[in-house]
Amino acid sequence: MSEDVVTHHHGYHDNKDAHLRRLKRIEGQARGLQRMVEDDKYCIDILTQVSAMTSALESLALALLDEHISHCVSEAVRHGGGEADAKIAEAMNAITRLVKS
Amino acid sequence: MSEDVVTHHHGYHDNKDAHLRRLKRIEGQARGLQRMVEDDKYCIDILTQVSAMTSALESLALALLDEHISHCVSEAVRHGGGEADAKIAEAMNAITRLVKS
Amino acid sequence: MSEDVVTHHHGYHDNKDAHLRRLKRIEGQARGLQRMVEDDKYCIDILTQVSAMTSALESLALALLDEHISHCVSEAVRHGGGEADAKIAEAMNAITRLVKS
Amino acid sequence: MSEDVVTHHHGYHDNKDAHLRRLKRIEGQARGLQRMVEDDKYCIDILTQVSAMTSALESLALALLDEHISHCVSEAVRHGGGEADAKIAEAMNAITRLVKS
Repeated sequence: MSEDVVTHHHGYHDNKDAHLRRLKRIEGQARGLQRMVEDDKYCIDILTQVSAMTSALESLALALLDEHISHCVSEAVRHGGGEADAKIAEAMNAITRLVKS
Repeated sequence: MSEDVVTHHHGYHDNKDAHLRRLKRIEGQARGLQRMVEDDKYCIDILTQVSAMTSALESLALALLDEHISHCVSEAVRHGGGEADAKIAEAMNAITRLVKS
Repeated sequence: MSEDVVTHHHGYHDNKDAHLRRLKRIEGQARGLQRMVEDDKYCIDILTQVSAMTSALESLALALLDEHISHCVSEAVRHGGGEADAKIAEAMNAITRLVKS
Repeated sequence: MSEDVVTHHHGYHDNKDAHLRRLKRIEGQARGLQRMVEDDKYCIDILTQVSAMTSALESLALALLDEHISHCVSEAVRHGGGEADAKIAEAMNAITRLVKS
């Protein structure tokens, strides 16, 4: 595979399998929560699991963002110009959504 | 059904189906994210979906908490004594986890 | 002092001095941040202080909420009726603002 | 002023006055909250003000972070090497603190 093609891959490409494993685990947490609701488990125990799942999602988001800044944004910054500004503005919007959510 | 049995149901009991539908949708979001990663979708679009999923989880947590306070905690408060304090302390711990996560 | 007067005090009344001390400290953090900006301190060090101040505010909010639920909301629940529902709905709105901010 | 000196300024330098005005306003909010507690204002109204202050702090943090990434981090990325990686790791730590707090 030529380097040209490689550079088209997104920042998270190298950790694709790790991300998929994480998302499988998060999907499992969503299924586990359905079982808890079906089995009338105690509200507070359900809330504890929801918080764990939210934390797992936030950690995944931070890992994806790290790779995005290290690759896509950094590449745009090295090329310079309007593309760099646009990529930083786009990343800042994503960070704002993470902080405010 | 005797009142005795009814009072054993948790606060979220009446909305069990609504909660299960929400969790099914959240599980679907987790699967959608796996497809996005597999298909090498753009990092920022994946992050947008992660934020949407986090928001959905937070809204579910707030709905569960509302029912928990309206039922379990309120019942303990009406009975009074140490049980009321314990239930409020337990709810505050859950709220703290939600706020800090 | 008659009980009538006592019950008009808000939940946080007993800890008023502690809350004022906390807020004085938070005000001091806001002034410290102004000095850092004036002295051209490093951005990341400023951000660390902003995060510390946000954490201090969240902890204060959780302490106020705890007292509010233990006193105002609990009293309304003991009296029962629409007032109890209104107080719980109002508290849930405050919790939602804390979680979503 | 030589360009050499200019490049030593941090990213937020151009908006220093705007940041100081924002921090003055946040300091004013901390003083306003002390008056509310002293005057025994209603707990929920105090919590609403605390949430407004937390939001103001988060917005300030995001503005500082934007400038930091646009200037300090981008400059390190253009120079390349270990310095770039270190600056991105440092920024990610700050973002993590913002998201988790």
